[in-house]
Amino acid sequence: MADEAIRSEFSERVKRFQLLLRDDGIDGALIVQRTDLFYLIGTDQNGVLWVPAEGAPLFMVRKSYERACQDGLIDGIVPLRSLSQVPELIRSCHGTGPARIGLEMDVLPAALYLAYKDLFPEANMADISPLIRSVRMVKSFREISLVRKAAAVGDELFEKVPGFLKESETETDLALRAEAFYRSKGHPGMCPMRAFNQLNVYGHILAGPGAAVPSASPGPTGGQGTGPFMSHGAGFGRIRPQEPILFDYASNVEGYISDQSRIFALGDLPEKLRRAHQAMIDVQTAVAQNGRPGADAGDLYDLALRVAREAGFTQGFMGHPLAVPFVGHGLGLELDEWPLIAKNSRHVLEEGMVLALEPKVVFPGKGVVGVENTFVVTQGGMEKLSRFPDEIVIVP
Amino acid sequence: MADEAIRSEFSERVKRFQLLLRDDGIDGALIVQRTDLFYLIGTDQNGVLWVPAEGAPLFMVRKSYERACQDGLIDGIVPLRSLSQVPELIRSCHGTGPARIGLEMDVLPAALYLAYKDLFPEANMADISPLIRSVRMVKSFREISLVRKAAAVGDELFEKVPGFLKESETETDLALRAEAFYRSKGHPGMCPMRAFNQLNVYGHILAGPGAAVPSASPGPTGGQGTGPFMSHGAGFGRIRPQEPILFDYASNVEGYISDQSRIFALGDLPEKLRRAHQAMIDVQTAVAQNGRPGADAGDLYDLALRVAREAGFTQGFMGHPLAVPFVGHGLGLELDEWPLIAKNSRHVLEEGMVLALEPKVVFPGKGVVGVENTFVVTQGGMEKLSRFPDEIVIVP
Repeated sequence: MADEAIRSEFSERVKRFQLLLRDDGIDGALIVQRTDLFYLIGTDQNGVLWVPAEGAPLFMVRKSYERACQDGLIDGIVPLRSLSQVPELIRSCHGTGPARIGLEMDVLPAALYLAYKDLFPEANMADISPLIRSVRMVKSFREISLVRKAAAVGDELFEKVPGFLKESETETDLALRAEAFYRSKGHPGMCPMRAFNQLNVYGHILAGPGAAVPSASPGPTGGQGTGPFMSHGAGFGRIRPQEPILFDYASNVEGYISDQSRIFALGDLPEKLRRAHQAMIDVQTAVAQNGRPGADAGDLYDLALRVAREAGFTQGFMGHPLAVPFVGHGLGLELDEWPLIAKNSRHVLEEGMVLALEPKVVFPGKGVVGVENTFVVTQGGMEKLSRFPDEIVIVP
Repeated sequence: MADEAIRSEFSERVKRFQLLLRDDGIDGALIVQRTDLFYLIGTDQNGVLWVPAEGAPLFMVRKSYERACQDGLIDGIVPLRSLSQVPELIRSCHGTGPARIGLEMDVLPAALYLAYKDLFPEANMADISPLIRSVRMVKSFREISLVRKAAAVGDELFEKVPGFLKESETETDLALRAEAFYRSKGHPGMCPMRAFNQLNVYGHILAGPGAAVPSASPGPTGGQGTGPFMSHGAGFGRIRPQEPILFDYASNVEGYISDQSRIFALGDLPEKLRRAHQAMIDVQTAVAQNGRPGADAGDLYDLALRVAREAGFTQGFMGHPLAVPFVGHGLGLELDEWPLIAKNSRHVLEEGMVLALEPKVVFPGKGVVGVENTFVVTQGGMEKLSRFPDEIVIVP
């Protein structure tokens, strides 16, 4: 893609955000979270981006100004020695001091929020996190093609798993092999999450009953983790025959994530688990077929619940003892983007949204089955990006 | 260690924190950050911990209540369905509503801060992050022994590096081998950082001139990273002979981090880089010898600067073009704990503090040299925990 085309795509993102700022009567936003910064201007350097409701944005950079100039896709980039310079720098390009300022209140620490309030004592502060998340939830052709590449790398990983299983004794043995493989394909080594307190890791590789251990994870599965200090994800649980082994490890190409899960087993699984797995594939199919532009995400969640219930898998669906109230989530630069296919979700699907559907059933004392794939919303329904079969892989 | 001894150690931590709450006239603190939670009560589950200035703490748990009961080292653990229950639950054990409430304002998102203000409209909110960070900066015997184990794993990694170098073409080739090795030793796969916007990764493996590329990293080195979306740390830079290769990768045992750096090279390095490396070892020795209980951290920083200057390495010391204003930082459960051996730091060293000294010199276009070790403050000065020699390792 030509440099000029990339610059124009990024400038389009800023314009879509500015439109929402104007709709909400906000004079401008101060953007500081590294992923939002990268999304809007192509660099995640440490600084403060002023996005006025109209006009050119200004990136005031703490560190590194040189890198920001090299990577950044806007013209207005200036060095910043101290936060106290921000109001003057904004006034110099804005004319007057802004009366209503947008902040990323879902991620901005309280101490910084209070510091900004002190810097702009006259201004009102508004939470623009719903606006930036809305802009980010519809992906460009270029973003979708990166997620597509990430899905292909995920397929490659699944092809490797039977081999990994032969040389692994514990969940961690599998995890280190999966991570090394991903890193060899350019994975940055983490998949950022936006929500407070989340571990920015690859995901969950969990064996047998260990996968059914509840946790602080916002997803349906947990696992023991490596200890109570890092209490979900792969731990030291042993891999045993006739138990489901969950591979829920997100791939990442140039910052864009694809999230997919498969179940592997050394030898066959009990019939009830196999039936539950098939039911989850059916849930996925039902949602994907109905996931057209205009579809209500809350309705799609209800549909998922209905299909699971009709197949007899209400108990343990999406978690045990506490079920998480969603079956799908947006993703892109972060693992927990919008839209949410969730209870009472007000999101409406649009062409170009990218989301992961992950219907799963947790059987306490036995393990987890189910499937996950990353999809893109098209006129004809949701297009599945992974090619690796959804069925349980029995490794002889 | 017996269960009873562990419980009593954790209860001592809570008591030390309560002492500081009382000193500051705070009625109690609402603790929510996962690392602070684990530090105080032994579990990082998702919930709200009420620590009254006096009396027993109460952990109100969103997810998972079962895991919190299993791992938590206090008696008061109750389930929490909604944040709106928090005031009533606190009143029921506190008697009255608290007038002055402490919050972790350095990490708590603004939206949550505002939610707590709404829940307690009568109360004053105070930032207790300096208090909890102060409590955490002096380590117990048990904590120090875990950091010691982590340092030993770091030594093992360094022994492996010459072998890794022979089979690696890029920084990422080295990184994936280092990560797989650490994971095989139980490393949880990340080293949490407390500061906003930080990447919770292992550290920096950087080759030659790539190591001197400036970045948003709060440390002296940067590197290209895997792209402008994740813009420091190992990238796709090639490993070449006669260039310094920086291995700054933090190990982790049961949540406790040891941070150490060494320089490797395929063949010899230019004399100036070798001299700078020796000067950094001298800086480290000077600070470590003077790092006794009662020493002023600001003075130790000035001492480091003076030793570097006298050796002729002012330019590029601790970063280029921007130097970071510190040569050492506390660490433990997080990579960026207190104390700071920094410009104007007001920290005073105490026995049992654990910190990393990392004097480094950046040569633009050439690379980085210098050393890093994790130390524990003892009556006789700072004890170095790594045993692997500090000198540049020339791989023939």
